[in-house]
Amino acid sequence: MSFHSMWAELLPVGRSSASGGYRRFAWTGADAECRAWFEDQARTRGLACETDRNGNQWAWLGDPAAGDAVVTGSHLDSVPDGGAFDGPLGVVSAFAALDELRRRGARFARPLAIVNFGDEEGARFGLACVGSRLTAGALTVEDAHRLTDGDGITLPEAMEAAGYDPEAIGPDPERLARVGAYVELHVEQGRALDLTGDAVGVASAIWPHGRWRFDFRGEANHAGTTRLADRSDPMMSYAETVLAARREAELAGAVATFGKIAVEPNGVNAIPSLVRGWLDSRAADQHSLDTVVTGIEKAAREYAAAHGVDLDVVRESFTPVVEFDHALRDELARVLGKDTGLTVPVLGTGAGHDAGILSARVPTAMLFVRNPTGVSHSPAESAAEDDCVAGVLALADVLEGLACT
Amino acid sequence: MSFHSMWAELLPVGRSSASGGYRRFAWTGADAECRAWFEDQARTRGLACETDRNGNQWAWLGDPAAGDAVVTGSHLDSVPDGGAFDGPLGVVSAFAALDELRRRGARFARPLAIVNFGDEEGARFGLACVGSRLTAGALTVEDAHRLTDGDGITLPEAMEAAGYDPEAIGPDPERLARVGAYVELHVEQGRALDLTGDAVGVASAIWPHGRWRFDFRGEANHAGTTRLADRSDPMMSYAETVLAARREAELAGAVATFGKIAVEPNGVNAIPSLVRGWLDSRAADQHSLDTVVTGIEKAAREYAAAHGVDLDVVRESFTPVVEFDHALRDELARVLGKDTGLTVPVLGTGAGHDAGILSARVPTAMLFVRNPTGVSHSPAESAAEDDCVAGVLALADVLEGLACT
Repeated sequence: MSFHSMWAELLPVGRSSASGGYRRFAWTGADAECRAWFEDQARTRGLACETDRNGNQWAWLGDPAAGDAVVTGSHLDSVPDGGAFDGPLGVVSAFAALDELRRRGARFARPLAIVNFGDEEGARFGLACVGSRLTAGALTVEDAHRLTDGDGITLPEAMEAAGYDPEAIGPDPERLARVGAYVELHVEQGRALDLTGDAVGVASAIWPHGRWRFDFRGEANHAGTTRLADRSDPMMSYAETVLAARREAELAGAVATFGKIAVEPNGVNAIPSLVRGWLDSRAADQHSLDTVVTGIEKAAREYAAAHGVDLDVVRESFTPVVEFDHALRDELARVLGKDTGLTVPVLGTGAGHDAGILSARVPTAMLFVRNPTGVSHSPAESAAEDDCVAGVLALADVLEGLACT
Repeated sequence: MSFHSMWAELLPVGRSSASGGYRRFAWTGADAECRAWFEDQARTRGLACETDRNGNQWAWLGDPAAGDAVVTGSHLDSVPDGGAFDGPLGVVSAFAALDELRRRGARFARPLAIVNFGDEEGARFGLACVGSRLTAGALTVEDAHRLTDGDGITLPEAMEAAGYDPEAIGPDPERLARVGAYVELHVEQGRALDLTGDAVGVASAIWPHGRWRFDFRGEANHAGTTRLADRSDPMMSYAETVLAARREAELAGAVATFGKIAVEPNGVNAIPSLVRGWLDSRAADQHSLDTVVTGIEKAAREYAAAHGVDLDVVRESFTPVVEFDHALRDELARVLGKDTGLTVPVLGTGAGHDAGILSARVPTAMLFVRNPTGVSHSPAESAAEDDCVAGVLALADVLEGLACT
């Protein structure tokens, strides 16, 4: 099955006709359809498909027990109204790269696996990379069991409803010990390759990033009859903090975003009692990120105090800087540059990935495919078909160099 | 049944144990319980209870067909997590005032009715005073049929599910022609009476007020990888507009509130594609209100343009200034001051009421009961029991003066 046919088959799954975006959230029906598609692709190619204790899917060529496996893949879930490429491009390219290697008559000296990590985006339970975090022991079972979605459904309940055993989840060191290298191909979520004019690049590092919840608590009151001077309106401090976040990020060359909000009671004629805003912030290094978040929190506390509003700030997740394996990174750059003699771009990224989680345990690398607009997490996310094909060939070259004789 | 027992009976209906506030929304189970309570109170007193074509409940003493009726009452529904007094105080006080008149042995020369208007707060369908608007012809059947709640349920569907006929709704001039005067007692939603030291006051006017929807449309994108300079983030323009609204309202001595917001996709790591904020604004006169809203919209358009964001502003509802009937207002002030010789406070209000809708068709007046904190539309809304009793006696005096020989 060609890249094109695989892509076309996956395209309608979990797509909202209203927004044109994807809603492939963990343990939903759309997620199950994606998983069935993955199994089907594995079966067609004679690969042994298994789902691990944390709900990640693995399709094996060769004997997993032999060890030192070369693993490639990505994820199939999406953010709310996400694009088609973030995740699926890596999984489809993995199958297509295997097809290319077979066309070349490559002989495998190491086991090869294609992986689909579960719940990478964290769209449903608010924590990203749940599948790889659990596997790597970077998320405890207790914390995972406490995860709850917007409807109050816990992760164990959601897994059970989807036919999986939530009691089985946990660290999987035996599995990771069999992985010699992990290479993830991903659509670029920025415009660096577009600016350099390259179809494919190699990742250097993932910026440190985190999520913070700002709870501004004021006093609910009638919007028509409460004098401005008598108000404790948390929407005011929230608005001021949104603007402070942009200022602090600009000063530090970082990014800071308030993209999610929950308001109570959220009535047109009621001053809110609670405005809860989520801050996502990332920077090239730890010091810059600390400076940005400290600056935002300090400003928010001053605004809240001025409006008679209480403020709680909770860090909901945090991932330190990830430097990808230098030897593997250099090997990728060498393989990709060998035909053209050109230097392959090596770039940092502000996006988190399963590769970032795994890199603490196994040598890990990433390939990026050019995104002409840089737009991601949106139905407008795109990549040219020529660039996708270049990505498949680059991944095939890399896998051939790592796994074949 | 005493004021105290009636109050205690109604208190648990539709109360959220989580917030302590009320969720008595139109055509829900809590609304049905309130309606059953009303019927029960009418039956206990030998009043003929009927529900009109628009879902308003009427309890009659005397023959409705005789005409020139004196009507009193209010509403039993609530805003999201509202207080116990806004609405119910007027209905409970109406029954208690009738009990007081019977104790006094009063002889009625005109029919008396106690009314519970449906869907006053507009919490579910976004439009306030639906019951009285329909009756007065201030809302067309077509527009009412298009009203939709947050779950996509239309008003006709909600009415049908509650056992009412949505095809029956519409103007009810025959019913209004039988009403000689309408007097609504309400908890004050401000601190004017607390500042003057009075338990009860009379309304002069309702400020003009309206609701405007601001749709800021930008471009959804990845919060970690999109450079600040490449963003069209509608949350920025929204935040700036919230602050502009406060400034414009302060300048004009008016009020302006953004208390409701809807964000798409509302993901922690996604720059929003849409931030929809609802503005509620009110002022003492039309000119001031126009100045405030025009100023906010102008500022919002500048902010949106600066961020590459599209802005649509839609006026969702508007109610011009309501001057209550001067003769009736003066009569109320005379009756209430006759025992003490003191001047009864006459005050304007920023809150909308069914009395404001009806005043276009029948002579209408309002009594306010002191609210020690001014807090309303919140579980913290309160009134002292002594003041509630003073309100009942004042209403009894007014009804005796209007309806009895």
